[in-house]
Amino acid sequence: MSSEKPRILITNDDGIHAEGIEALEAAMLEVGDVYVVAPASEMSGASHSLTLGRPLRIRQIDERHWSVDGTPTDCVTLALNRILPMELRPHICVSGINHGANLGDDASYSGTVAGALESTILRVPGLAFSLVANRSQDFTESAKVAKEVTLKALAEGIPEWTLLNVNVPKGVPKGIKITKQGFKAARPIISEHIDPRGKPYYWIGEVREGFRAEGGTDFEAIDEGYVSVTPMRSDLTNHSAIEIMRGWEESS
Amino acid sequence: MSSEKPRILITNDDGIHAEGIEALEAAMLEVGDVYVVAPASEMSGASHSLTLGRPLRIRQIDERHWSVDGTPTDCVTLALNRILPMELRPHICVSGINHGANLGDDASYSGTVAGALESTILRVPGLAFSLVANRSQDFTESAKVAKEVTLKALAEGIPEWTLLNVNVPKGVPKGIKITKQGFKAARPIISEHIDPRGKPYYWIGEVREGFRAEGGTDFEAIDEGYVSVTPMRSDLTNHSAIEIMRGWEESS
Repeated sequence: MSSEKPRILITNDDGIHAEGIEALEAAMLEVGDVYVVAPASEMSGASHSLTLGRPLRIRQIDERHWSVDGTPTDCVTLALNRILPMELRPHICVSGINHGANLGDDASYSGTVAGALESTILRVPGLAFSLVANRSQDFTESAKVAKEVTLKALAEGIPEWTLLNVNVPKGVPKGIKITKQGFKAARPIISEHIDPRGKPYYWIGEVREGFRAEGGTDFEAIDEGYVSVTPMRSDLTNHSAIEIMRGWEESS
Repeated sequence: MSSEKPRILITNDDGIHAEGIEALEAAMLEVGDVYVVAPASEMSGASHSLTLGRPLRIRQIDERHWSVDGTPTDCVTLALNRILPMELRPHICVSGINHGANLGDDASYSGTVAGALESTILRVPGLAFSLVANRSQDFTESAKVAKEVTLKALAEGIPEWTLLNVNVPKGVPKGIKITKQGFKAARPIISEHIDPRGKPYYWIGEVREGFRAEGGTDFEAIDEGYVSVTPMRSDLTNHSAIEIMRGWEESS
């Protein structure tokens, strides 16, 4: 990296006014120049969705902050292809700090992870940060971790086409573990309600029933009090299934 | 499988009135009993997003058809946890037929793939079908492929925790290839428009610039006129990067 200050694009899925993104911005101001492009409102569960069916509005708040009425993926693609001029192309994109874990299968529903995934696809290394705590809003330790991991990624680089999904446990972490994505065993609970006109509507909730604590997973690291850093890429292929299924091939 | 007729859950991301889902339903009626739970309107680009921030409405159209004002992921979780009673739990879930390809990185934006991914997470094997043609609405060949692949998956099973992302080329396919997910090189183009009040708004579009035609990818199979069947799982881990990054680990 040259001696210029690193440029850091910040996004999230809890919205531009969330406490987690403010904590992340404060940490990143100690690392480099920051540019925040984030959803105008909460977008949790947005996954890697891209808004194609309607137009988007960009609101510039000040020189360094923009909100978009879309998803984290929309924010990153607009930041890199419209909002920031080429000479301000960021060195890295950080997403978060998410209010809640993005472990196991949940990473695939996560707008936080998707923001980092989108930047990686667009060739800017991406980092996603999440705090594993449902009620706590204390981002002190997770902001420290975000700063440390970002400095390391800028200094040492991360593998090509790879993003890092970083989950930080409650309290002071014992250290960092490089992990693989685990699997959860959760049963969604759909709750039924009745509106004032007597018609039913439904909310999707979830009852977690534990996880498959295989060795080396993100769940395991968090369970033991470590920061979990999972290298991810935009590849859902089940490589081990390819040979198993070879017998399906046919030519006419 | 027992001798009872297979039960098939159908969803998509183009919406319950799309031609692709009608073609898929017609093909599945030759395989078993069908239950259609699909978005009320088009949800392209919805990815694996789950609607958590607002309630959902379910509209029952007849004994076998329901529409939901949400994403494909919402449809599948509602179908399996609310709409279909346990004794009608489906043997398989099919999603599509998508109007357009879901190859390479695009699979991660795809609501079609996400419908099959969600059912796989909920332990019902999932298949996603897409027709690689932007303008053609001729689903004849892709419906045949959907029937053939579904019969095969029901008869032989598919690897655990795995979904199949099936892309069908234009015309009569030469056969089936088992593939891995490729990578695209596309440059998003953001177009700016001005509304009647003089304010700008933006649409996200895309200019494809080709793909990395590594051997054995979905792109390659389609390019050669074959049906591409990519086994996928809910795991974004870049396994080869784990050892590379081991040096990042630390304990305090």
